[in-house]
Amino acid sequence: MKAYPELERRFGRMANLAGAGAVLHWDWATMMPSGGAEARAEQLAELSLICHEMLTDHGLGDLLDQAEAEGEELDNWQRANLHEMRHHFSHATGVPADLVAALSKATSASEMVWREARPRSDFDAFAKAFKPVLSLVRQKAAAKGEALGCAPYDALIDGYDPGVRMAEIDVVFADLAAFLPDFLAAVLARQSAAPEPVPLVGPFPAEAQRTLGVGLMERLGFDFDHGRLDVSHHPFCGGVSEDVRITTRYDEADFASGLMAVLHETGHALYERGLPKAWRAQPVGNARSMSVHESQSLLIEMQACRSLEFLRFAAPLIRAAFAPHLDISGAAFEAENLHRLATRVAPGMIRVDADEVTYPAHILLRYRIEKVMLSGELPVDDLPGAWNEGMVELLGVAPANHAEGCLQDIHWAGGDIGYFPSYTLGAMIAAQLFDAACRAEAAIMPGIAAGDFAPLLGWLREAIHGQGSLYSSPALIERATGRRLDAAVFKGHLERRYLT
Amino acid sequence: MKAYPELERRFGRMANLAGAGAVLHWDWATMMPSGGAEARAEQLAELSLICHEMLTDHGLGDLLDQAEAEGEELDNWQRANLHEMRHHFSHATGVPADLVAALSKATSASEMVWREARPRSDFDAFAKAFKPVLSLVRQKAAAKGEALGCAPYDALIDGYDPGVRMAEIDVVFADLAAFLPDFLAAVLARQSAAPEPVPLVGPFPAEAQRTLGVGLMERLGFDFDHGRLDVSHHPFCGGVSEDVRITTRYDEADFASGLMAVLHETGHALYERGLPKAWRAQPVGNARSMSVHESQSLLIEMQACRSLEFLRFAAPLIRAAFAPHLDISGAAFEAENLHRLATRVAPGMIRVDADEVTYPAHILLRYRIEKVMLSGELPVDDLPGAWNEGMVELLGVAPANHAEGCLQDIHWAGGDIGYFPSYTLGAMIAAQLFDAACRAEAAIMPGIAAGDFAPLLGWLREAIHGQGSLYSSPALIERATGRRLDAAVFKGHLERRYLT
Repeated sequence: MKAYPELERRFGRMANLAGAGAVLHWDWATMMPSGGAEARAEQLAELSLICHEMLTDHGLGDLLDQAEAEGEELDNWQRANLHEMRHHFSHATGVPADLVAALSKATSASEMVWREARPRSDFDAFAKAFKPVLSLVRQKAAAKGEALGCAPYDALIDGYDPGVRMAEIDVVFADLAAFLPDFLAAVLARQSAAPEPVPLVGPFPAEAQRTLGVGLMERLGFDFDHGRLDVSHHPFCGGVSEDVRITTRYDEADFASGLMAVLHETGHALYERGLPKAWRAQPVGNARSMSVHESQSLLIEMQACRSLEFLRFAAPLIRAAFAPHLDISGAAFEAENLHRLATRVAPGMIRVDADEVTYPAHILLRYRIEKVMLSGELPVDDLPGAWNEGMVELLGVAPANHAEGCLQDIHWAGGDIGYFPSYTLGAMIAAQLFDAACRAEAAIMPGIAAGDFAPLLGWLREAIHGQGSLYSSPALIERATGRRLDAAVFKGHLERRYLT
Repeated sequence: MKAYPELERRFGRMANLAGAGAVLHWDWATMMPSGGAEARAEQLAELSLICHEMLTDHGLGDLLDQAEAEGEELDNWQRANLHEMRHHFSHATGVPADLVAALSKATSASEMVWREARPRSDFDAFAKAFKPVLSLVRQKAAAKGEALGCAPYDALIDGYDPGVRMAEIDVVFADLAAFLPDFLAAVLARQSAAPEPVPLVGPFPAEAQRTLGVGLMERLGFDFDHGRLDVSHHPFCGGVSEDVRITTRYDEADFASGLMAVLHETGHALYERGLPKAWRAQPVGNARSMSVHESQSLLIEMQACRSLEFLRFAAPLIRAAFAPHLDISGAAFEAENLHRLATRVAPGMIRVDADEVTYPAHILLRYRIEKVMLSGELPVDDLPGAWNEGMVELLGVAPANHAEGCLQDIHWAGGDIGYFPSYTLGAMIAAQLFDAACRAEAAIMPGIAAGDFAPLLGWLREAIHGQGSLYSSPALIERATGRRLDAAVFKGHLERRYLT
């Protein structure tokens, strides 16, 4: 066995560079003064370029061939690692270098146009910059599809969710699409028949919000010797698994959104921290996929922390955090009211502001549209019409302009097609995992009700975190829950939470 | 002209990697949780390794040869840039790779031993770990000396202060050594005849110290769109020239040391910010040398900010910063008392705590000793004797143990021989530059007295900062001051400040 150890050495070097890039990206979003942007962009581009050079090095393909021929000498983890290496190599070499460069240039330009076009609701300006991006993404999808032996859109999805294919997504998303409109109507009818929740009135000082967030992170199992909590414009989870850095933002008029972001990002962070230590610097030690990553944040935020059980535990802590600053004596800060607020459903135009029930509808719409944009069936100029029609069909509301319609997300402008499904796949995986966890381990819900997340975290570490990329995501989910992913558990969860 | 542009491209890539490393190092010292240390060490080592690979690439030597042959097609900056490239290449390739690796291993071990041996004052433990380091440094010095065509110790100095040689240092340091002991005695006699300064009694809250520091940094011309001020164990100036990050630490019992560190590091930062923009990513755009860098920090801290003129300006700001927290009405916070405190002389054992007058004596001692350790004339076992003897001769005090004697600095344990002289060369350069600046530009001292550093900064940008590495440091100093470096101006400065 000669080739495999050399592959580990090379991928270990790439992991170091990726880790350096992750910390520099965190710094860019949290610490960097504005004047540092240009130099930072060059540093990050340099690290990406070197990784790309290492990954597309001609010798690497030969090493992979040799190691695959030595396959029987490898153990399970090594074999899975080799499989992941091949996956990275195929994605990197599947697209010609000039196409990569052209796409990078076109998406930079189109993101810049998008930033100006969105506030002006200027679809024509966006469309002009987006058309060349779409054309290049179609070329990329075709090239990758050929390299991977799958359909073009499948090849794009595979970049975010290895092994996941349109055919499966179509089935579970069709199930949801048939369910959601009637379900939403029923939830809204039930909600309007009940008394309105009492609004929470601040101001909620940022420092008190931070202290509350840190306290709950510790309860969740976040280790501050291996991570940080800071502030950025958009919340995210970054850094490396030995040093996981999450962010939030504090709105002094509304503590709930910043706090939910902390819980959500802590879910991502616990996944990163729980990845298999021995494989930390290798591809098989990485998180499985975008949808599994999103399942971990949504499991913590949506499944565990928006439950009445958890909010009963958290309510006294929330009251204690803000008691020095405002009157917390009324019904507003009671657990039942906090729960009504945390599960309030309201169809709206903007995906990132959507609640647990309407969020999937936003994703179903984007999935539908990006498939036909990529295939060429939907010309870019027809995008606004398709968007507005879909919103009415799925959510019963129509955008007043493009800014709150098809121009709201940066993803397509940046050439990111195939990414949106992972949000809702993540929500379904979260429901299915949480259901299996609670069935397998009776201590989980009583733990959550007492602010003790150790039983839940123990199950997740065993079933998901510690598995890294040892299995494909369908296999991982089936091993953890006893069944393949479908929409049933997620629908059952929504029905229990919103209709009973 | 073909080779030169390719060299610029390659060195530009190395500059990006060095910049990434600088920000990661800053993060390590300011933000990183303890559990992130191991991963960070690997990231930093990876970046260094890639830079070293790029720099010792065989093709690079050929490119340098070709570009030097094309020399007449280059302009002054390009020619100087090429000279700097050759300098970096010679230093990197002058030492065999196995010696670099052995040295890296030995210094890591010896630094670790030093950390434990110093508090225990255990010279024998240190000596055992340091002997192999010294032996390897001697091999390195011999190899570099051969590659550069100079003496071994000169080759080490050249790594920190390109072009500076023992022969020149010997002259100026001998001049200082002849001057200092008698001068120190005279200063101490004069000081003891005068009334004691009134001590400043805190507590000085960290946040108030920070606000004061930020205000003075802005006066000095520090641009917070291109930099930050944070806290670390040892103050330093890091980051990159578009994003310069300085640090200090706040002692709530003594604001002066933290504030002086802010002013000192701001001097370094202004140099970095003022480097020639067009050459930012090239070797010729780098700061000239360690001693010129130190001259910029000492010019701001020692020459400008410990002057009575500046302290008259700063005293009301200092009082305003602490007025909400303590009684600032007495003589303690008057400018004259602050000045007496800022120029207090007291021979002590510890270099990093030394004042402006006794600091050079600490350096003279180390310079003497490291020269004869490197040549082999002084065996490691005789180091404590030589140290203690030198302290008595130069400063009139003898260490009670090795912890406050020859074990106090980490430099030698880390294999850093040839670095110490730059501290005192920097102090002499600072005096000579400040003197020339004030002669050339009458507005400088009145500006400092009014908290307006623009005239001083303007002169420094023109004479030093904007020149990058266009000239050798002796040429740079001669162009800026009209004379080569000598000890005369520094001695004159000390006499004026401490004896009149």
